[in-house]
Amino acid sequence: MQHQSFIAGKVVVDVGCGTGILAIFCAQAGAKRVYAVDASDIALQANEVVKANNLSDVIVVLHGRVEDVEIDEEVDVIISEWMGYMLLYESMLGSVITARDRWLKPGGLILPSNATLYMAPVTHSDRYSESVDFWRNVYGIDMSAMLSLAKQCAFEEPSVETITGENILTWPHVVKYIDCYSVTIPELETVTTGFKFNSMMRAPLHGFAFWFDVEFNGPAIPTSDYHSSTSFTENHLVNGSQRKKRTNPSEALVLSTAPEDPPTHWQQTLIYFYDPIELEQDQAIEGLVTLTQSKENARFMNIHLEYTSGGRSHVKESVMR
Amino acid sequence: MQHQSFIAGKVVVDVGCGTGILAIFCAQAGAKRVYAVDASDIALQANEVVKANNLSDVIVVLHGRVEDVEIDEEVDVIISEWMGYMLLYESMLGSVITARDRWLKPGGLILPSNATLYMAPVTHSDRYSESVDFWRNVYGIDMSAMLSLAKQCAFEEPSVETITGENILTWPHVVKYIDCYSVTIPELETVTTGFKFNSMMRAPLHGFAFWFDVEFNGPAIPTSDYHSSTSFTENHLVNGSQRKKRTNPSEALVLSTAPEDPPTHWQQTLIYFYDPIELEQDQAIEGLVTLTQSKENARFMNIHLEYTSGGRSHVKESVMR
Repeated sequence: MQHQSFIAGKVVVDVGCGTGILAIFCAQAGAKRVYAVDASDIALQANEVVKANNLSDVIVVLHGRVEDVEIDEEVDVIISEWMGYMLLYESMLGSVITARDRWLKPGGLILPSNATLYMAPVTHSDRYSESVDFWRNVYGIDMSAMLSLAKQCAFEEPSVETITGENILTWPHVVKYIDCYSVTIPELETVTTGFKFNSMMRAPLHGFAFWFDVEFNGPAIPTSDYHSSTSFTENHLVNGSQRKKRTNPSEALVLSTAPEDPPTHWQQTLIYFYDPIELEQDQAIEGLVTLTQSKENARFMNIHLEYTSGGRSHVKESVMR
Repeated sequence: MQHQSFIAGKVVVDVGCGTGILAIFCAQAGAKRVYAVDASDIALQANEVVKANNLSDVIVVLHGRVEDVEIDEEVDVIISEWMGYMLLYESMLGSVITARDRWLKPGGLILPSNATLYMAPVTHSDRYSESVDFWRNVYGIDMSAMLSLAKQCAFEEPSVETITGENILTWPHVVKYIDCYSVTIPELETVTTGFKFNSMMRAPLHGFAFWFDVEFNGPAIPTSDYHSSTSFTENHLVNGSQRKKRTNPSEALVLSTAPEDPPTHWQQTLIYFYDPIELEQDQAIEGLVTLTQSKENARFMNIHLEYTSGGRSHVKESVMR
């Protein structure tokens, strides 16, 4: 609704429309026509919802994959709620890219326009204690023999949970910045980044948190081609390195899933170590993280994490399933 | 510990020992020997826990199924935490029966000694509203077309959740009373019972709740054979019908998972209707419930529910997986 001026009178595609709610918002914002596309059977319900709200003359529900359905005109706007846990897990960004390349007009708008995946080191003694230290004394019985199994059960896989800003030990590092206008599908198959943090306090390091935000920016430069790199401006300082961000002529609209912001459906994704690292203030933690689509199952995401601190190196492999 | 007199100096089997905590409690209560049996690899950890607590001279961990492991003496006491959700879902009662028939001395003790599965009609408007009524108006949009799918998603399968005594519309009905001394494995394959409730108030009926309790009774009559029916006395009035309960010479020890008692790991199991029934005070609800082990997967439990109220009959099939 805050971008009503970009939608009124325009042709819109809603990629992965689900119940059709975003398509209906666009119709309410005055869209000329909205194509609501979903490959799942939810499209049947979406069609009923559209009819019940007397919007059949504006919204066309297409039951099929964006690769397969036909839209016989160029579109002005693509909207999509494509984000998965940790941004990229089970994400539908690939479908947005396909829709963009098939139908979006030059100079057309994509909402959200860009997304950023962040990571930061985390301290979370309560969480570690309840999963691990519990076993040191159970009704007076020494159950330390359970520790390695307990750690494996609790920390082998990534955990979607809500933490707070107080759990975060440094400014975040940008794992991946995605410009929805230029990102390609091959670019998403493997995402890798080196990182170096310096702990802002003395604390046990229990693992890393990942979260994301997405921005809903207007057109970069109204007359420019959407692939033009002149539509970027450096205005965002993260972790000591500058990254590029699309200019936003109106007030920036951001959906943040950061620990310091109100909790969302996506929460944060935590990768815990089996054993914490006792950090001194300013102690460095450096390493590498690589996210890859699993070969075992395309829905799964493999997370390869290497990290070094205090002269000791560690590797942790995990699978988000 | 309140049954220490029955355990001190005795030979005990812990069926499905897990981490070994009950076996260790028995050792602490003065058991002469405890066989801790578990088919899963947790037995390896249990063995380490036993060693760490210097109890290897008392506790023998046996890694295998009760059908397969060998114990070369009769046992005085069988203990087991065998109860599953809704008492019988993924329960290990079959293993307790096998252990009893293989090793228990005449006059020996089984803890818990008996178990009762209850059901009662439930009203729970908040739960129904958040799952169903939500869709009637989503940000001003009529999403009633989602209702049947929403009901299916929310209520097709049994739901393990915590309710309170205020959600219960009548005294409970006993679905199954299990005497651990006499129950047989075939008897558990299908459990069926007719029920008739009269609502104690005017309220929408949303479904049925199931819960259980188990009792830890001492020997029935110290000198009697444990199969003797003279060890029972009628002392428990439930839903207008009397049921039999083993006498308890010491104070009764009961683990209850009822809605009016403090919540436990087991919570309650709810079977919701797709549509509520508006009950008048004293209105009758009668029917039949049948619990059967699934043929599709032996771990699953099929729940067949027939109910009639206000002249209308309904059938609901659900699967607990």
